[in-house]
Amino acid sequence: MEALALAKAAAEAMWREDNAARWLGMRIEEVRPGCARLSMPVAQDMVNGHNLCHGGLIFTLADTAFAYACNSYNQRAVAAGCSIEFLAPAYLGEVLTAECSEQVLRGRTGVYDVKVTNQKNELIAVFRGKSATIKGQLVEGA
Amino acid sequence: MEALALAKAAAEAMWREDNAARWLGMRIEEVRPGCARLSMPVAQDMVNGHNLCHGGLIFTLADTAFAYACNSYNQRAVAAGCSIEFLAPAYLGEVLTAECSEQVLRGRTGVYDVKVTNQKNELIAVFRGKSATIKGQLVEGA
Amino acid sequence: MEALALAKAAAEAMWREDNAARWLGMRIEEVRPGCARLSMPVAQDMVNGHNLCHGGLIFTLADTAFAYACNSYNQRAVAAGCSIEFLAPAYLGEVLTAECSEQVLRGRTGVYDVKVTNQKNELIAVFRGKSATIKGQLVEGA
Amino acid sequence: MEALALAKAAAEAMWREDNAARWLGMRIEEVRPGCARLSMPVAQDMVNGHNLCHGGLIFTLADTAFAYACNSYNQRAVAAGCSIEFLAPAYLGEVLTAECSEQVLRGRTGVYDVKVTNQKNELIAVFRGKSATIKGQLVEGA
Repeated sequence: MEALALAKAAAEAMWREDNAARWLGMRIEEVRPGCARLSMPVAQDMVNGHNLCHGGLIFTLADTAFAYACNSYNQRAVAAGCSIEFLAPAYLGEVLTAECSEQVLRGRTGVYDVKVTNQKNELIAVFRGKSATIKGQLVEGA
Repeated sequence: MEALALAKAAAEAMWREDNAARWLGMRIEEVRPGCARLSMPVAQDMVNGHNLCHGGLIFTLADTAFAYACNSYNQRAVAAGCSIEFLAPAYLGEVLTAECSEQVLRGRTGVYDVKVTNQKNELIAVFRGKSATIKGQLVEGA
Repeated sequence: MEALALAKAAAEAMWREDNAARWLGMRIEEVRPGCARLSMPVAQDMVNGHNLCHGGLIFTLADTAFAYACNSYNQRAVAAGCSIEFLAPAYLGEVLTAECSEQVLRGRTGVYDVKVTNQKNELIAVFRGKSATIKGQLVEGA
Repeated sequence: MEALALAKAAAEAMWREDNAARWLGMRIEEVRPGCARLSMPVAQDMVNGHNLCHGGLIFTLADTAFAYACNSYNQRAVAAGCSIEFLAPAYLGEVLTAECSEQVLRGRTGVYDVKVTNQKNELIAVFRGKSATIKGQLVEGA
């Protein structure tokens, strides 16, 4: 299977079992080899009394984009560690987009960067994830 | 108000408007000045098809414990940046506990460490958060 | 003064008092607004018995490129926090290059990414620094 | 060999080939299983024109304490990634101490925390390192 088709097939396989991403209202906007873009509207359950989105859920969106990007070669990979810098608040009703791009993949270790923006293209957070490849594939026999 | 009572009052004020923490089934187990311990059962919505908890939600628990700890002086503080190392998976039905303790608070900047364990006291993740104090209090006139 | 000339003048002012960078044999290869590229040969004093460069000195090169980039607007800035991922070893006699580029600068806070490569353009480490602007300029009256 | 004696023997073996630590004037103050404490005076070569120590060299001290701690079982380990938060400046003539303690060691992965203080016991920086065990021992046949 060609690389782009494989990335899409791997993402579909992940998505079917990704309860949390669906529960949080995420949507896969794009997947390519080493890259993924996901969106998530900030819902009532995600905010505090000042209508500010919980930082953990901003992280969760970024972390999910990272997961789709680092699994896009159809080789299972997990997050070993992640860091996030919060730059601006996100509010109820906004739509956040997390765009993940691979910085390096060497042996079993990858480094992926994610930018989270709102619908006005303002930068909300930057995230860096380190992946470790494990055994197994998402799409068998691909 | 005495420091421990103030920490509890600040936590109660935060909890009332913390939709996300309640939605995710978290529970405040303990709050003291500079420290907080919260628990969260791993529910069906939080896992994938292999019953593994989404790393973003483990982060969200840790981040929430961090928020209660760094706001425990009744002075509003926000997360500037956080990092997490994932050490072991968490599964459906497990109960996770995040224990946060202040490492340093100097001027407007604090560093807080969180350990996330499961009900067997196995270490699932370690988290470090950096806080920035902002204007405002949680409990007015305290 | 025009932005590029100001970046160069600020770098020259920093370099004159930067004992450590000179002591470690660093060289400024390029400075532009928000960006800096520095090189450093791995010398005998920097390696262990296996001729491997000390990771702290790889960090120091990256951190120095970060400093020149975040001070390139002639507004003094300091490192608040940094992280580094070590991807491959560096050896005695190699020449390392650290290239820093600004990811975001908003208010007093900036995020800068650095890639450290060797003379074969192999990636040795990736670094992320968070800057905080402080009072003062490097070139007075510019 | 008993654990404490082994930690000391492993540290001595490392020290003999640790050009950088000696060059930077570091001194091993204490080594125990999973822990290490090192000191370093801030020398003229390490400061800028305002007598402020280069952050990279503060990192290098912390990273070195981390290396001695994670190699204290006589099983070779390397730094996979590190983060540092700079809390206060260090000045020419001060003596910095880095104290590293193991947070967790599970399988091939360890997490180690370091606090860097000055001679007045003021906190200068906090550091977190993630180690990966590799093949080989420091003291053969121990």
